[in-house]
Amino acid sequence: MIITDIARYLLPAFFPTSLVLSADSSPLNLVPLPLRHFTGDGSTPLCLSSTFTISLDTASLDGHEPPDDLLRGLKRTEQNLAKIGMTYLSPDHGAKFLYAGKCDRYLDSLIVHLTNYDGSTIFDQSVSPVETRPDHEAYNLSIPLHGAAKITTGGALGAFRGLTTFEGLWYTLEPSSRRGKGEKVAYAPHAPYEIEDKPAFGWRAVLLDTSRNYFSIQSILKILDTMSLVKLNVFHWHVTDSNSWPLVLKGFPELASEGAYSPEEVYTEEDVKEIVKYAGERGIDVLLEIDTPGHTAAIALSHPDHIACFESTPYKQFAHQPPAGQLRFADQATTTFTEAVLADVAGLAKSRYMSTGGDEINMNCMSEDGPTTAALAANGWTLDDALDVFTNETHAALRDKGITPVVWQEMVLDHGAMPSLTNDTIVDIWVNSKDARRVLDQGYRIVHASADYFYLDCGQSGWITEEGGGPGWCDPLKTWARMYSFDPFKDVRDEERHLILGGQTSLWAEQTDENNLEPTMWPRAAAAAEVFWSGPGSDGKPRSAAKAIARMHDIRYRMVDRGVRASPLQPHWCALRPEACTMGA
Amino acid sequence: MIITDIARYLLPAFFPTSLVLSADSSPLNLVPLPLRHFTGDGSTPLCLSSTFTISLDTASLDGHEPPDDLLRGLKRTEQNLAKIGMTYLSPDHGAKFLYAGKCDRYLDSLIVHLTNYDGSTIFDQSVSPVETRPDHEAYNLSIPLHGAAKITTGGALGAFRGLTTFEGLWYTLEPSSRRGKGEKVAYAPHAPYEIEDKPAFGWRAVLLDTSRNYFSIQSILKILDTMSLVKLNVFHWHVTDSNSWPLVLKGFPELASEGAYSPEEVYTEEDVKEIVKYAGERGIDVLLEIDTPGHTAAIALSHPDHIACFESTPYKQFAHQPPAGQLRFADQATTTFTEAVLADVAGLAKSRYMSTGGDEINMNCMSEDGPTTAALAANGWTLDDALDVFTNETHAALRDKGITPVVWQEMVLDHGAMPSLTNDTIVDIWVNSKDARRVLDQGYRIVHASADYFYLDCGQSGWITEEGGGPGWCDPLKTWARMYSFDPFKDVRDEERHLILGGQTSLWAEQTDENNLEPTMWPRAAAAAEVFWSGPGSDGKPRSAAKAIARMHDIRYRMVDRGVRASPLQPHWCALRPEACTMGA
Repeated sequence: MIITDIARYLLPAFFPTSLVLSADSSPLNLVPLPLRHFTGDGSTPLCLSSTFTISLDTASLDGHEPPDDLLRGLKRTEQNLAKIGMTYLSPDHGAKFLYAGKCDRYLDSLIVHLTNYDGSTIFDQSVSPVETRPDHEAYNLSIPLHGAAKITTGGALGAFRGLTTFEGLWYTLEPSSRRGKGEKVAYAPHAPYEIEDKPAFGWRAVLLDTSRNYFSIQSILKILDTMSLVKLNVFHWHVTDSNSWPLVLKGFPELASEGAYSPEEVYTEEDVKEIVKYAGERGIDVLLEIDTPGHTAAIALSHPDHIACFESTPYKQFAHQPPAGQLRFADQATTTFTEAVLADVAGLAKSRYMSTGGDEINMNCMSEDGPTTAALAANGWTLDDALDVFTNETHAALRDKGITPVVWQEMVLDHGAMPSLTNDTIVDIWVNSKDARRVLDQGYRIVHASADYFYLDCGQSGWITEEGGGPGWCDPLKTWARMYSFDPFKDVRDEERHLILGGQTSLWAEQTDENNLEPTMWPRAAAAAEVFWSGPGSDGKPRSAAKAIARMHDIRYRMVDRGVRASPLQPHWCALRPEACTMGA
Repeated sequence: MIITDIARYLLPAFFPTSLVLSADSSPLNLVPLPLRHFTGDGSTPLCLSSTFTISLDTASLDGHEPPDDLLRGLKRTEQNLAKIGMTYLSPDHGAKFLYAGKCDRYLDSLIVHLTNYDGSTIFDQSVSPVETRPDHEAYNLSIPLHGAAKITTGGALGAFRGLTTFEGLWYTLEPSSRRGKGEKVAYAPHAPYEIEDKPAFGWRAVLLDTSRNYFSIQSILKILDTMSLVKLNVFHWHVTDSNSWPLVLKGFPELASEGAYSPEEVYTEEDVKEIVKYAGERGIDVLLEIDTPGHTAAIALSHPDHIACFESTPYKQFAHQPPAGQLRFADQATTTFTEAVLADVAGLAKSRYMSTGGDEINMNCMSEDGPTTAALAANGWTLDDALDVFTNETHAALRDKGITPVVWQEMVLDHGAMPSLTNDTIVDIWVNSKDARRVLDQGYRIVHASADYFYLDCGQSGWITEEGGGPGWCDPLKTWARMYSFDPFKDVRDEERHLILGGQTSLWAEQTDENNLEPTMWPRAAAAAEVFWSGPGSDGKPRSAAKAIARMHDIRYRMVDRGVRASPLQPHWCALRPEACTMGA
């Protein structure tokens, strides 16, 4: 069945006798692993011609202008290929593939066809995603032993994913084993390749918290580059929190001038738009989060009237971490203010989604707050009633702009009935993966972002100063293999599968800034990227770490080759022979 | 008593009415904290003159040539001061110290006197340490409100430590709060300063493993720079292990040509000498380790006859981690070979110490090895007998050069009586801090390097590939506060205190290379640096993390200012107000 599906698209000349159909333990060292692929057996390496070029098949555009961002993507791929310094991870560093260092076959060109095999073009001609739909990211990549390589896809985003896959197939020889005087050759060891690809889930996110510690714009752009390398497509930007408010809003400049760590540690509206544009060109949607009504102490520095229990101590009675401070969500003026801020922020991104947070609301803070208790009495509300009104009004600021709200799980689990949270609301599961079940029972769409699998900051231990040091709340470290063992459909009924949008790794930044960002995020987030791109294993069970470790090494060394400070997963000795470093070896 | 001691050295003019004697909770944000210090109360900041210079008092040289390495050190300090971008860690970023941004007092010069107050010069005139003696590192630093600052010390190494302390006192204002058009001013907020300093322990080490993963020479030099910033003085370089042999020995070039990961991932003898020289100029002794007889599989690639159970599987029966392989220590040819290798390595460093390892010897590997069992039978030896003979002969290679051997704890704890290990041998405690007691009982000098406090790699979780991920053997992460809570004299009798040479943090590199080196090592190793420089607290108990956290933040941000990717310990908000982020705040 699989072979037949693919074979339909292949010219007979593409089928050498050595063609191999591979499952997830594969010579195709890609993360995430494509839906289906064939490769050669390693006996016919293909070298990249020094005149190699990538071009759009203009006939496939059907009269449309070629999309600018895709043209820039083609150029970047050409540049990336010219710079590849990645050697094959085997004890001989790949020398076995090029007999006596000699290339017999060269690839001259890659041609991108923006029309599917059935003649369809299925969406807007732009790399930038307007929503998260798997069919927008589908592509076919064919690299024959003779003639041009070809990406066949319905649109620019699929083409971009195909280009990323193409980049991941090439290696060089290490300097000391190169032919001649250090001549650099890029080769694809397992040509020919036939790849059919499409993500299992449309929502594959990374969260960054830029409030606990500040991250430079440059470091954020680098995250986006690396996300695109593993086909992650949602940058969930937790911009603000109680520690600082780095977002300079033209309508509310005082929030940052008082709430940022310094005038240098900010994001202007222009910065946000630059980041959104940069992300879009890499197939990434930027999901902005303004966490409300908790996690907002920094607002008190410019708007003290809107914040209850600001910096109240002992902090543990009023907040999960210092400083305490929450929006007075029972107060109409505060609600109106929040609505206006959210409306401003909603204008900055292009996403159809935005998060209003909603986690860890401390009810003790509110019940001890004079203005809040007065408002509750005047309206005859409970705190949960007031939260529902607040949510209804603040979400309206998003819905007015066609934006669907995203919230953390407590909003639907901890505050009784919340009529404001209609079932189109998207719920991020974070406390524990088991909580997904209760949210699905209420009919919401969910994103798997649970701390027990996907928090990148777990394992850093407690950061509140304590004699002898204290444990972290979600120790130990979530290893790549832990993330990889996650089953998105565990305890999910067949008829609910459409409610699982995808998953997310999260980097809460209490003990992270740009100095340790990359080793903390990479390559672990790539393991999650594969879970949600490639989906469960072929047997419906979680994928096997033992089968994936070689590919995880490959993507990690590719990240390093791109200048990303990704952590090594094992001694280099093991990266060259991962089967020797597996339990029981 | 303390005041009297110091006062003896001070001119009356140095005592403004605001002078404060501070304990370890102090406005002096240095790590490690000096033995004793006075500071001003923050009302009389001192600015660094734009013509500031550091000079040697040539009269104090007593006819000696000025030491070259100290002169270079003076120059580096001048350069470092000119580049300081560190702002004071308080909510106002230090603006409170410079009223209206105006400097009233400027410091023009720092003069280094290489003669103690009592007229003595106590050692060779070179920064490079020839042995680890606390009195060689002692210095006094005086920074008055008027006139030149002064370092008074017995020699070049003390002078270098004093320069390091001097560098740590200065801050700038952040760009947005600088006077005029971004004019940069360096100021010391708590002038005047009177500091008397001397380390509690002479052995303050960091271990780096360069076999599991390779580290570039540049990354090692950067470790040395950062070590010197916190007055660490021993770089314990675990050069080789079973995974790779990166050391290019002229007498045994085949060890690296076969055993290194690649011809690029090596250290030549010239590289080692460059590292030793660079370290020496920064007051750091390089302690080379060639781990024997275990952890030597990489030798088999060039000398298969010397290695038992090479790459035997399942590896767990033959070694703690793959690949298995140990020197045939019962074999005379192997012993002679090892002796020759060690003698070559001993010629590379200037240290009076060198480690021959001795950890984790797998006796099953040896008892199943044909050549080994034959040798045992021929000599009528047990394996422990053979190990003692091997140790005696290989240590002779060091002793012949005046070098004292250093070994891991198993050598004296796990192999019965070992007459070869005379009591001058130094023993690194690593498995557990409790094991120190049994080693002291045998009369050895020890270095506290135990995994339960000082392993920088603990908490990374297991790295052997395992479905779902496996735990690390020494999880959780050893936080700075955990390290800081260590008591070097716990369970140590008063008459044994001289046996405690000091301590060491260790970075075993299974999951570390230069991509995540700095965030993994820093600033945590600075907490250990203070434990062993400053010694136990004044009450004889471990020092208080709550009192040290502000200084730990300070040194971490100084590291970042120097281009070191040190991890943040808390949200930046807490770094500005650490008292608010302490348990119970």
